[in-house]
Amino acid sequence: MRPSGRQLNQMRNVSFERGFSKHAEGSCFVKFGDTHVLCTASLEERVPPWLRHAGRGWVTAEYGMLPRATGERMRREASAGKQGGRTQEIQRLIGRSLRAVVDLEALGERQISVDCDVIQADGGTRTASITGAWIALYDCLKWMEARSMVKADKVLKDHVAAISCGIFADQPVIDLDYLEDSSAETDANFVMTGTGGIVEIQGTAEGKPFSQDEFLTLMGLAKDGIGELVELQKKTIAGA
Amino acid sequence: MRPSGRQLNQMRNVSFERGFSKHAEGSCFVKFGDTHVLCTASLEERVPPWLRHAGRGWVTAEYGMLPRATGERMRREASAGKQGGRTQEIQRLIGRSLRAVVDLEALGERQISVDCDVIQADGGTRTASITGAWIALYDCLKWMEARSMVKADKVLKDHVAAISCGIFADQPVIDLDYLEDSSAETDANFVMTGTGGIVEIQGTAEGKPFSQDEFLTLMGLAKDGIGELVELQKKTIAGA
Amino acid sequence: MRPSGRQLNQMRNVSFERGFSKHAEGSCFVKFGDTHVLCTASLEERVPPWLRHAGRGWVTAEYGMLPRATGERMRREASAGKQGGRTQEIQRLIGRSLRAVVDLEALGERQISVDCDVIQADGGTRTASITGAWIALYDCLKWMEARSMVKADKVLKDHVAAISCGIFADQPVIDLDYLEDSSAETDANFVMTGTGGIVEIQGTAEGKPFSQDEFLTLMGLAKDGIGELVELQKKTIAGA
Amino acid sequence: MRPSGRQLNQMRNVSFERGFSKHAEGSCFVKFGDTHVLCTASLEERVPPWLRHAGRGWVTAEYGMLPRATGERMRREASAGKQGGRTQEIQRLIGRSLRAVVDLEALGERQISVDCDVIQADGGTRTASITGAWIALYDCLKWMEARSMVKADKVLKDHVAAISCGIFADQPVIDLDYLEDSSAETDANFVMTGTGGIVEIQGTAEGKPFSQDEFLTLMGLAKDGIGELVELQKKTIAGA
Amino acid sequence: MRPSGRQLNQMRNVSFERGFSKHAEGSCFVKFGDTHVLCTASLEERVPPWLRHAGRGWVTAEYGMLPRATGERMRREASAGKQGGRTQEIQRLIGRSLRAVVDLEALGERQISVDCDVIQADGGTRTASITGAWIALYDCLKWMEARSMVKADKVLKDHVAAISCGIFADQPVIDLDYLEDSSAETDANFVMTGTGGIVEIQGTAEGKPFSQDEFLTLMGLAKDGIGELVELQKKTIAGA
Amino acid sequence: MRPSGRQLNQMRNVSFERGFSKHAEGSCFVKFGDTHVLCTASLEERVPPWLRHAGRGWVTAEYGMLPRATGERMRREASAGKQGGRTQEIQRLIGRSLRAVVDLEALGERQISVDCDVIQADGGTRTASITGAWIALYDCLKWMEARSMVKADKVLKDHVAAISCGIFADQPVIDLDYLEDSSAETDANFVMTGTGGIVEIQGTAEGKPFSQDEFLTLMGLAKDGIGELVELQKKTIAGA
Repeated sequence: MRPSGRQLNQMRNVSFERGFSKHAEGSCFVKFGDTHVLCTASLEERVPPWLRHAGRGWVTAEYGMLPRATGERMRREASAGKQGGRTQEIQRLIGRSLRAVVDLEALGERQISVDCDVIQADGGTRTASITGAWIALYDCLKWMEARSMVKADKVLKDHVAAISCGIFADQPVIDLDYLEDSSAETDANFVMTGTGGIVEIQGTAEGKPFSQDEFLTLMGLAKDGIGELVELQKKTIAGA
Repeated sequence: MRPSGRQLNQMRNVSFERGFSKHAEGSCFVKFGDTHVLCTASLEERVPPWLRHAGRGWVTAEYGMLPRATGERMRREASAGKQGGRTQEIQRLIGRSLRAVVDLEALGERQISVDCDVIQADGGTRTASITGAWIALYDCLKWMEARSMVKADKVLKDHVAAISCGIFADQPVIDLDYLEDSSAETDANFVMTGTGGIVEIQGTAEGKPFSQDEFLTLMGLAKDGIGELVELQKKTIAGA
Repeated sequence: MRPSGRQLNQMRNVSFERGFSKHAEGSCFVKFGDTHVLCTASLEERVPPWLRHAGRGWVTAEYGMLPRATGERMRREASAGKQGGRTQEIQRLIGRSLRAVVDLEALGERQISVDCDVIQADGGTRTASITGAWIALYDCLKWMEARSMVKADKVLKDHVAAISCGIFADQPVIDLDYLEDSSAETDANFVMTGTGGIVEIQGTAEGKPFSQDEFLTLMGLAKDGIGELVELQKKTIAGA
Repeated sequence: MRPSGRQLNQMRNVSFERGFSKHAEGSCFVKFGDTHVLCTASLEERVPPWLRHAGRGWVTAEYGMLPRATGERMRREASAGKQGGRTQEIQRLIGRSLRAVVDLEALGERQISVDCDVIQADGGTRTASITGAWIALYDCLKWMEARSMVKADKVLKDHVAAISCGIFADQPVIDLDYLEDSSAETDANFVMTGTGGIVEIQGTAEGKPFSQDEFLTLMGLAKDGIGELVELQKKTIAGA
Repeated sequence: MRPSGRQLNQMRNVSFERGFSKHAEGSCFVKFGDTHVLCTASLEERVPPWLRHAGRGWVTAEYGMLPRATGERMRREASAGKQGGRTQEIQRLIGRSLRAVVDLEALGERQISVDCDVIQADGGTRTASITGAWIALYDCLKWMEARSMVKADKVLKDHVAAISCGIFADQPVIDLDYLEDSSAETDANFVMTGTGGIVEIQGTAEGKPFSQDEFLTLMGLAKDGIGELVELQKKTIAGA
Repeated sequence: MRPSGRQLNQMRNVSFERGFSKHAEGSCFVKFGDTHVLCTASLEERVPPWLRHAGRGWVTAEYGMLPRATGERMRREASAGKQGGRTQEIQRLIGRSLRAVVDLEALGERQISVDCDVIQADGGTRTASITGAWIALYDCLKWMEARSMVKADKVLKDHVAAISCGIFADQPVIDLDYLEDSSAETDANFVMTGTGGIVEIQGTAEGKPFSQDEFLTLMGLAKDGIGELVELQKKTIAGA
């Protein structure tokens, strides 16, 4: 039995609020249950130094958590003077996931910086970030398209979304919340495209090692869940 | 004529959303027009080293802005590796303002950390922060009262709220938004208590120096505005 | 009764020693009683990146204290690896105060960096810094004038000086020394020009809030004191 | 055809040199072809603050590269003032991998710090690090066993080793060297135990997304390769 | 011919002003010509962590330069966020030099921190710092003796002073000023005690290597110069 | 009697392994007994900003120790966030020593960065670094010569090598190992050229001051030892 009463293959309620930010070219406030992340996409007419005059652009991501997004207040990274290892790991993952569905040459010599800031955390902040970031990125490209800068669907080749799966109380479950996450034996994050291609897999045994069969079960759960997330993304951008 | 069409002495719409955060002991999402700040109050059963065994507690504040809270994306302070001078100045101001209405001995040997994170900025982020932080602090103390830790009204002796005033286009105006703020000749922030006492005054000539008379006009505007804000705080905690 | 035996409206002995530094284009060793600050103005033929090709210059300030300028040795900021919030707040104040009386276009595309280093502290280091920095800046501009780079009085439009006032033992007093400052109920710093315009006001209730009347009394004291300081600046640059 | 002429399922020559360090309680100089890593295990009679009095120990890892371990000299992280995101990601991975086969309670209230320093890099530094770190850890525990501190095989429950697989030139290959790694379409790292349990999976599409079938092929390659690595570890500690 | 017109073996005018600081337990403003350093000695009733309960104390030193102590303004180390290599090298030298004449057990479990801050630089700041620091340390110990904490002459076993010598324009000279220092072929710093013992020697060939004979000539010059400095220290503490 | 049983004037076994690194233009793994240092020389087609368009190049050095190079594990400097004072002092010394025998104009507008990383430490790491760095630098220049970039013997004017001497148990000894170094009364490092010129002398009294005669004895020992090291360098580059 899951603490939330959900079925093993049941994700939390997921919602996307587009245009949450007045200033950003694209933005999305994404909720996976009690996990809330604000994703903004900012267009900058410059590229990193190592890409200058290379004829293509860049998409990068930064991730942060408000100090009291969590059950106990965490030290503010700006005050600690550096981003922790976990933060860096997650923002690198978000960036790679988005770039997997972007045609950087079609973007031109520009950078889009996606910021994913966790307003409230209850497990799965990285998967919510990736899934919401896609919407923010899409809206940023639409903003650019409206100004004849790019063709949005030339730049953004596919959807991308992410979900966590894990083995909790000996059962394979999808979309772990904090209670499940903190006592799961195995925790895996999957990032996939709208056409079912795999972009990233991260599986970790927290306690005892897991078997290939267990992993395949998790991947099956993830495939279904990500399918649902992509459908939701499609409805969202269709304005439904 | 103000860009927003407001009267000279008209503040923006102000609203407080209590309990915005699932985790924090007290929280408030405050809006001054398009300036949106999330304030959380976190109780910690420890005090700073220099207060140990001193028989009283501490209230401190930290301030941050999401990178795209502003018209142009700013560099994330956690990534830059330090908090800028402006950030430090503001969080020191918020802390002093709150402590001015707190009885630290009645609080006991505990610390309440108030985080003010600007989700969207349109001028006046520090005054919105102080005004919303009071609600978060109040709710944190009520949470403690419910657990028989303190008497909330023994600890919190008065209201505190803040507003900016300035001289814009040769006219004294209240609650400047970003457009006004960036071209005001004079900019002043006032922090006052519910009983009209002054806690902090910060006045700065951006262009030419100002006179004592001009300053008194601004102070008069502020007094009225803060009176309204305190009324709103009272209605909010009364549950209206 | 003030610990120093001074009258309520009596400042400490103030002196300016010009040309204290062999190397700097302008320099002044300023004493407000036992508070001693070395101010140097350094001309640099470059401007900050955001001002390049803007046709005007910049005046900036940095502030520091020697580790044993104070009663107890403080940690050296260079060793701690960052400037504290108080340091940043003060150096921003000094810079704004000086720029209020400078015509940046008349300065041309150059930067003058004013360093205020507290050799010995006894309260009022920021006001002594501003008052002495004006002399250093003046002498730097005279140095430039001697080389036909600028007309000093075109660049420096007015005097600027600063003083602290506060409520100590229920009495309004001017130019608080450390003993007074550490137990004052209210502490306010005023920065004004030679013609009486107000450039900066910072008032803080340390204990209980203060009233508008109390504040006006302090402003009156400050106006007189700053008038005296400006007279002293005039005598100093006249070589008296 | 692989640049090195290896078969698709052929790993590079792997060797372990035990006792490379005079000082460390356990050490191993591991080579995967031209990738050379020095692993040392250091026993410390203390645990991290959050584990004090918890009745169990900790195993942690740090990772570094000499500046000229790579084809172009990289900036020294000590001189840059921080560890990059990649470094932190890898050292967290090594630590988790080792802890997956350690009984922290059997270790007692002590910490073993494993340092993996890349002396020369040619792809696969993280997998070589994990595989060599196991030997260093084993020897450290044997050192402790000789001093009657622990039973080594109570603390170290199983072997752990790692290998990378990827899709290069449309073919699934094992143990990518730098040339392959820098142009592979998909890159996956697998960490498994001696009994075939999976500890960590990290798969990343560098170019186009990969399918589940492709991933299973890579996992099959990895299982065989890690089997060989574990055999080599066994021979090594048997003194063969 | 030396730029200053001095004889080859002629030091600059050296003076010590005791009690320059109102707050420090011991202080000395030392001048070697235009090189001016403020040395303060601060008593702290604690020792570094690694000396706790070891039954002896510690003497340490920190060194800094005001940004415009030099011909061109240097970046403030507190603002740069770290102390440079030169700063660290010099402050380690000052600390070692002082400890060479201190009986740390006679000092007891206390630390004396000596700060040497260069107010104006014209070559030889490290040698002036050491020589003046001895006076500050002596006065600090006398302050302690007056409070029956130590016997000053049991703690401070001897004088210590320092001078630079070098080969300038093919001639051996003593006490190089900036002009000489910046074009000397060889530069050597000597630290010696009042009884002629050598504490530190640092010799560096700036251009071509030097011979043993040249070095011995420099050492001879240094011995005489340090003899004079020690005489001056003796006169100074005798109150002459 | 020396702990190692060596004669007073007997150095440890010294060996140089050229070409240790696959990537670096020049490299040398140098051993002075149990002190092992990897030296790499990296060619970069750029110079530091202050040398641009000056028509000459630069040779610089960085120094590091692996965390467990020593008897007790030291904190990794990359993780501590800065290089310590000792590290900076040593890397400045290595750089100066190498530049003393390099014709920077003959090098052209390029930089050679020499990294000296201590793999295992047993005293004398800085002298081993300098001595081995010369070989790495030589091989880097030979690599350049093979590509017609420079004439190696025009750039590298002479050999340079270094050795430590000290007074241990009242006897002058050469090439101190860790046991000797940690209890020596006097410790001196000498850097000399192949033709016997002195490049650097650093002598420090650890306990009581030393006399000029003692110092001359140490310098005599050093001269002989460095003579031997230079012979070894010559044999090494001759391929013997």
